[in-house]
Formats: sequence, C-alpha cells, structure tokens
Amino acid sequence: MNGRVTAASPAVGLGSLTVVGLGPGDPGLRLPAVSEALAAATDIIGYRTYIDLAGPFDARQRVHASDNRVELDRARQAFELATAGARVVVVSSGDPGVFAMATAVLEVLDHTEDPAWHRVQLSILPGVTAAQAAAAVAGAPLGHDFCALSLSDNLKPWAEIERRLALVCEADLVLALYNPRSKARPDQFGRAAALIRGLRPPETIVVLGRDMGRPGEQLTITTLADLDPEQVDMRTVVVVGSSRTRRIERPNGGCWVYTPRSY
Amino acid sequence: MNGRVTAASPAVGLGSLTVVGLGPGDPGLRLPAVSEALAAATDIIGYRTYIDLAGPFDARQRVHASDNRVELDRARQAFELATAGARVVVVSSGDPGVFAMATAVLEVLDHTEDPAWHRVQLSILPGVTAAQAAAAVAGAPLGHDFCALSLSDNLKPWAEIERRLALVCEADLVLALYNPRSKARPDQFGRAAALIRGLRPPETIVVLGRDMGRPGEQLTITTLADLDPEQVDMRTVVVVGSSRTRRIERPNGGCWVYTPRSY
Repeated sequence: MNGRVTAASPAVGLGSLTVVGLGPGDPGLRLPAVSEALAAATDIIGYRTYIDLAGPFDARQRVHASDNRVELDRARQAFELATAGARVVVVSSGDPGVFAMATAVLEVLDHTEDPAWHRVQLSILPGVTAAQAAAAVAGAPLGHDFCALSLSDNLKPWAEIERRLALVCEADLVLALYNPRSKARPDQFGRAAALIRGLRPPETIVVLGRDMGRPGEQLTITTLADLDPEQVDMRTVVVVGSSRTRRIERPNGGCWVYTPRSY
Repeated sequence: MNGRVTAASPAVGLGSLTVVGLGPGDPGLRLPAVSEALAAATDIIGYRTYIDLAGPFDARQRVHASDNRVELDRARQAFELATAGARVVVVSSGDPGVFAMATAVLEVLDHTEDPAWHRVQLSILPGVTAAQAAAAVAGAPLGHDFCALSLSDNLKPWAEIERRLALVCEADLVLALYNPRSKARPDQFGRAAALIRGLRPPETIVVLGRDMGRPGEQLTITTLADLDPEQVDMRTVVVVGSSRTRRIERPNGGCWVYTPRSY
C-alpha cells in the first residue's frame, strides 16, 4: 500500500489497480485496508453480486458491474482504466488470491503487449475465504493439514480433478472444495463425493457452508454417508474431514467440528 | 456474534470466550469484528508477541501473556475465566483456525469433565493467515489448487510429514508450508526441501514470506534449485509453486508470481 500512485500524479500519468477481497460478505469480516481502497477508488469493477456487497458508493465513483464468467474482460477493463489515470479497485468475494480475481488480473498482465499495463501501480489485498468463514462457524476443521481444490472443470480436465482428489485423500488431508457444483455441471459434485466415499470411511465429517457471512447463511454438519449432493450448489463450500476430524456435541444441540493437531 | 452473553448476565452466570485471529500484524489486515471483540474483552489471553500486536489495552482489561508452546494451558485458563463470568478473548496470529489457537481451545473442550465449559458462549473469528499475506504481496501463487501443511513433528511423526509431502507433490498442488523450521528442529526444512527437489523441477518457484505485515517484512522469490534452507526460520511461511506457477518480470525489478487457473 506504500507509494500509491494517484490519478493526479503528473510524473507518471498512470493510475492504480488494487484487487481486493470482500471476505464472505459481513462487513465485520472485511479488512480495513479493503474498505479504505474502496473509499479511495475512482472506478470499481466486479461481478454484480460482489459490487452490491461492496457498496454503497459515492456519486462521483464510477461502478462497472458485470455478469459472472467474464473475469478476463473485467481484468482488461481494469488495466485500461488504470493506464488512463483512474484509481481502479477490482472486487472479489473471499480472498482474491484464492480461486478469484487476482489470478485473472495477473493472467491478463502476463499476456499483454502493452508495456503501460506493467507500469500500473498494482496491489492485491487479501481477505477471508469461504472455507475459513465456514470453518470458524463450525469450529476448527482446518486446524491441521488441509488442501483447497476447485471442482470446476471449465479450465482443468475432470480426470486431473479426480487424480488430485485421490492423492489428497491418501494423504489424509482435510479437503476444502470450491466451485463444487453449478447448473452447467450438475453431476460433478456427486461424482467427486462418490470417489471420496470410496477412499474415506462413511462416518467422515462433512461441513457444508452456504452463503457464509451473508443473509441466509447456512451451516450443515453431516457425514460422508449422509451427504446428499443435492444439498450443494455453487454458493456452497464443502469441507471434508480427515480421519482425525472430530465432533464435540453442544449442550443446546448441534456440534463443534475440529481437527486435532496431534496425529 | 449474535446473542453474546456478557459477564453481567444474571440468567446464565457464564461469560464468553472468543478466539480471534489478528491476521499478519498490520492493523489494516485485522478484521473489524476482531477489533470489536478485543475492545469488549475483560480478559485477553495469548502468547506475549501476539498480545503486543493486539494491544494497547484499557487499564480495566486484564492481560494474561504467556510464553509460546503452552497452548493447552492458555485454553484451560480461558475456560476457567469464562466460567467465572469473564468476557475472554484468546488471541492468535493469522487465522486461529489454521495451525493456531482455535484447535487448542476445542481440544481442551473435547477432553474436559467440567460441563460448565460446554455452556460458555464460544465464538471463533477468522483472520488472514501468513500464507495469504505472503501470497498477496507476491501476486497470486495460491490462485489455484493448493495445500497447507505444518512441517512440525512435535505432534505428528516425521515419516507422516514426508508421506504427505510426496503425495501433494504428485498431485501438483501449490504447497504452503507452516512451522518450517525452529531452533529445536534446525534440519527438518532442509530434509523437506531435499524431498521436494527430488519430485519437482529445479526451476519451480518458491516464495519465502518472513514477518509478513509486520515491521521488517521480507518477501523473497527464488527457485527450488537456489533455495537455501538457512533463509528459512520459524517466522517464515514457505510457498512452493506447482508445475504451472509462473513469474512476470516487473519493469522496476522484482516479479509477480501467480498460478494460472487453466491446466
């Protein structure tokens, strides 16, 4: 955040591009540095749902909301505005560095032929990801060795996803599964769950976090045996416990889930 | 955070216990919900270094600072104070749910014979972990499938650590390695690095983040071939790229590191 170049800087003529993570949605779970960057922005770019979470904005701030699945277009627009002198903020949910917009911005920078894009003052600010938010409400399922995998095969062959799932199950890691299912990929989470069921015992604890930190937040604690893939959609993060992940019954019902440090 | 029971609540007589993550240290990277919990606490418990990062505190707040490696003692003290009516906050660096205090608190709760401990209003608030903070400064090395592993064998056999490292290397995940080395375990990171060198090409990108978000923050970008285990200590988080992790040279020197989404 130091040495930020502003749109008014005559020596450079270039603006700035800050990629920020809103966290799960709750303002109490958004970093102050992110709120500051949003307040200082001349232009805010993002998927419409996240723009709505990030706002409201000042009348002088330009808001560029777009549909999902146009990450690279958003990243290019951000560099175009920044090279023209704007203070641009690209909003992501969660952490922009975890299955989100920071990667798209760097992909675009890596492939540009415009040297001005490389001179833009680029910063990335982290945030709390969906798995962390769900874990905190559930207890501490990510308290020991874990992995974070995307189940989307839009950009990765399904065979590779299955190969990775088998290896991390063998490694006995806790699994945090992102992008588990979508309308375009209705059957994949069921296939992944079937694969995991073949490799982990039926009593393995599973945590489903849907819309964590947003209105209607839903946390479900179940087991691999009882898991119904229909409970899972694109807004759900799935945490599958390791062989060590345990539950503690709570006196008023429900339970805490955690993964002990000792093995 | 809803329905928080205060020390003054006559109906219950029990206080509350909130486990919070300070993030890397920089106040801009600490969640507002965490700052609120700290301000409302009657008692703050933690490792001395993290207490110093969390303060200053009000003269009416009781601060219980302890040395490292007494996690379970701190957790028991927290339940004792909370059952006596205090509003206790246990501070962790990073995210308390990732190799930190939330697990110790739940381990203690799981094994207590005191039913009052189960009735304490317990909450866990997440935070930005060291690997996320280092990743944001480096670019987006955690932008695709990754794992987080602790290299400490205080509570896990070294053979199990090596087995996991081999499997996650085979899965081609990005590796975020916590607790890589300590005075008591000076040789383990070198052994882990040698194992990884046997499984990944020498040009694999490695990011070392030391004291991220604190005074003296140091980010080093190197390769597996050039990595010197002496560069790494207990305050370092190590991110080892996958076969896809790339670097983008920056016009003023240095580079961005990211892992593309497509495979």
